[in-house]
Amino acid sequence: MFRVDLNCDLGESFGRYQLGEQKDILKYVTSANVACGFHAGDPTVMRETVKLAIENGVKIGAHPGLPDLNGFGRREMKITPQEGYDMVVYQIGALQGVLSTFNETMQHVKPHGALYNMAARDRELAEAIAQAVYDVNPSLVLFGLASSELAKAGEKVGLRTAHEVFADRTYQTDGSLTSRIQADALITDTDKAAAQVVRMVTEGKVTSQQGTEVELQADTICIHGDGAHALDFAKFVKSQLEANAVQVVAF
Amino acid sequence: MFRVDLNCDLGESFGRYQLGEQKDILKYVTSANVACGFHAGDPTVMRETVKLAIENGVKIGAHPGLPDLNGFGRREMKITPQEGYDMVVYQIGALQGVLSTFNETMQHVKPHGALYNMAARDRELAEAIAQAVYDVNPSLVLFGLASSELAKAGEKVGLRTAHEVFADRTYQTDGSLTSRIQADALITDTDKAAAQVVRMVTEGKVTSQQGTEVELQADTICIHGDGAHALDFAKFVKSQLEANAVQVVAF
Amino acid sequence: MFRVDLNCDLGESFGRYQLGEQKDILKYVTSANVACGFHAGDPTVMRETVKLAIENGVKIGAHPGLPDLNGFGRREMKITPQEGYDMVVYQIGALQGVLSTFNETMQHVKPHGALYNMAARDRELAEAIAQAVYDVNPSLVLFGLASSELAKAGEKVGLRTAHEVFADRTYQTDGSLTSRIQADALITDTDKAAAQVVRMVTEGKVTSQQGTEVELQADTICIHGDGAHALDFAKFVKSQLEANAVQVVAF
Amino acid sequence: MFRVDLNCDLGESFGRYQLGEQKDILKYVTSANVACGFHAGDPTVMRETVKLAIENGVKIGAHPGLPDLNGFGRREMKITPQEGYDMVVYQIGALQGVLSTFNETMQHVKPHGALYNMAARDRELAEAIAQAVYDVNPSLVLFGLASSELAKAGEKVGLRTAHEVFADRTYQTDGSLTSRIQADALITDTDKAAAQVVRMVTEGKVTSQQGTEVELQADTICIHGDGAHALDFAKFVKSQLEANAVQVVAF
Repeated sequence: MFRVDLNCDLGESFGRYQLGEQKDILKYVTSANVACGFHAGDPTVMRETVKLAIENGVKIGAHPGLPDLNGFGRREMKITPQEGYDMVVYQIGALQGVLSTFNETMQHVKPHGALYNMAARDRELAEAIAQAVYDVNPSLVLFGLASSELAKAGEKVGLRTAHEVFADRTYQTDGSLTSRIQADALITDTDKAAAQVVRMVTEGKVTSQQGTEVELQADTICIHGDGAHALDFAKFVKSQLEANAVQVVAF
Repeated sequence: MFRVDLNCDLGESFGRYQLGEQKDILKYVTSANVACGFHAGDPTVMRETVKLAIENGVKIGAHPGLPDLNGFGRREMKITPQEGYDMVVYQIGALQGVLSTFNETMQHVKPHGALYNMAARDRELAEAIAQAVYDVNPSLVLFGLASSELAKAGEKVGLRTAHEVFADRTYQTDGSLTSRIQADALITDTDKAAAQVVRMVTEGKVTSQQGTEVELQADTICIHGDGAHALDFAKFVKSQLEANAVQVVAF
Repeated sequence: MFRVDLNCDLGESFGRYQLGEQKDILKYVTSANVACGFHAGDPTVMRETVKLAIENGVKIGAHPGLPDLNGFGRREMKITPQEGYDMVVYQIGALQGVLSTFNETMQHVKPHGALYNMAARDRELAEAIAQAVYDVNPSLVLFGLASSELAKAGEKVGLRTAHEVFADRTYQTDGSLTSRIQADALITDTDKAAAQVVRMVTEGKVTSQQGTEVELQADTICIHGDGAHALDFAKFVKSQLEANAVQVVAF
Repeated sequence: MFRVDLNCDLGESFGRYQLGEQKDILKYVTSANVACGFHAGDPTVMRETVKLAIENGVKIGAHPGLPDLNGFGRREMKITPQEGYDMVVYQIGALQGVLSTFNETMQHVKPHGALYNMAARDRELAEAIAQAVYDVNPSLVLFGLASSELAKAGEKVGLRTAHEVFADRTYQTDGSLTSRIQADALITDTDKAAAQVVRMVTEGKVTSQQGTEVELQADTICIHGDGAHALDFAKFVKSQLEANAVQVVAF
């Protein structure tokens, strides 16, 4: 029987600013990536988010990002590997502080946005981030784009590493995601998206936009928690996975 | 034999901005309060500061402040007790993250600036902060102004609590520090300052600006780490304490 | 014939964070207070907001706030009058920069949230803010709570000053607003709110929560632009004013 | 007779954080670039800096940077041209606000750090920044690296544009500065630096690190205001220019 984790981002509000997150998404996912105050989130939002995740039995991870609230951590910044190391350590620690007040442990770390993308292709940064996770707590799981430098760095440093795939994104021949600038970056057809996910999990393959077969390891699937159809989509993807004998569980 | 701790603030630089800290102060103090990124400090400065403290055998504590870098955490803000709780949890966690990468444990927590002063007189805020420290890790020591609401809240919640006195500040009849707005807030005569400290530690008494005798408990002494004479003063205070049979040690 | 201005806050989004503002509110108000990046707003949001206001023929003012994005400028901070002066100058200037790119002039300045409330009762801060507005541009109109220290300071320094009243808030005998902590701070009955507004404008009087008659000058009325019923309420208040021979116009 | 402007960065302190600026540098330069609160500076520092520049008869310009205080605006960020436009408009406006309180006009705009470097080679960003300057005030002078995309964009949009050269940096064959990562990026020999500057101003030429002759236009020379030898160097460069019949004046 196959197993896969479903993860989504959470806790991206800030002060009076609320993002349109669907809290009910927690009924369908098994892991939540909690923003840590750099690209989104604040200490109060983090506490409320952690509480909600615990109540729903969802595993919790840190979602460290670049220090760019205005850009939501989506604008690449030329940071050094050492700066990447330091900001990841800080953010994991901050969330661990919140978790401690609930006597709860952290499951994983998944970098956010531009930090995630930069670490997918920049080996030095990837290794600095993996080292940061390992140095804070070697029993944490590192989430990185399947086949990316980040996933490789996690394995190299000795972390349990989850290769992440995306339900609603298309892929290129080299295994990278089609850039969001491209018109065909997103899969809007729900059936198609679910079929792609099921195949990635059960066969370890995806068909690229170039028509080639790409091999990848699908340990966890990224589900978006915001937007009008987020809940329906999460529910559908989960049911399709289960209908294909895939067990949806955290690590 | 009497015992007392000497503490100083550390790690208050930020990015390219350096404060005029005397690193050699670590030769004379036994505890360092490390800024956690809200009023001062950043992830890189925190790592460098922790490394330095460890190398000098000085115990490390978190120095959480208000989210006001421009005001250096010295401007009071009307935060709720819950906000105080949340920001203290977050900052302790962030520093604990850094300490984990050194396999080092945290000794204490001392709120900074306006947060320290507000918690000294506001019972609700004091109890929220003490609870935050306890909830993250009940073995932490809480540093609060001697006889203040914060020190009381620490004892009430069951934390080991260190009553803090100041070497170079004058006191009022009610045990509070003379406001910095007053001309006589600071003791500039080194001999006088040292004598006051020795008496506070060995007799548990200080003479207020009103000429009254004030009883207080002196578990830890705050020493300033910046300024031209910081090193000389720290050295002199330490030697005077030791000359009066006071052992200078951390908790 | 009586005249009054209707104003509302605008441009309070930040990066990816959107506040639930009803853009159609611009059809009913005559002045918009644009956030300037300290408590809310950012350079891009400011440009978009100014464009929208111009398209709707609504006069534009600066809405400077405390440097506290996380608290939305609603937490009082102990700033000095000089700091208040400086932060108001900066924020007016920033918005004026945006307006220059549209060849548009600024009509007014209305401090936001805690800065507004602090300036309503603290004469020194009020005078510093009024001076800041005057020094940047003496032809600006200053908006302050009716009868407050801020309104008085505006008149004293020689600025055209608009006494502001609130449509949906109750008043105290001393002319201050009932604190939002009180249960009866808000008027939820639309007819009652409109009647209070009409009377304030046409008679210069309001009945306090203590049953006393309070005299005040109503030059501009604050209308909230967010919330489900904002549009209906603005439309209703405007129609009731006009039905009572009050001309709704900017300055 | 030749003419050239000497400019230096100023007002880079922030709250309690002071940079080691030599205020006396204002005796030797003719234009000052004042930080505007994004990469450095704050409203209070800006007022103090503007006052100082006026007292010294030095012309004032805005020095807008990326929103990255922790990185001092030196880390490149992938911003869109529109974001670049908006943040430049905002920062020019903010400084203009401060200048208005002194009844003083702004002379120029010089982007800072990574924004300056990105605009030197990215035409779209350069044109957005030039347009921003023009839209706020078409009589402003734009400072950009000599022969760069930014200088070209300034000329194209119709701004008076100052080609900037560096006294203590070496050049490449294509007219770009040698990257600071290279060992030979800086000219530490004062005589050599002064000679290079004099030649750039009087002959419009510089010898690159590759030994080739590079033509460039030297309208303004960047002088560093911090560091131990800043004052001596500024004084020496100025005297060498004057000894070679170059008049040192602002625009």
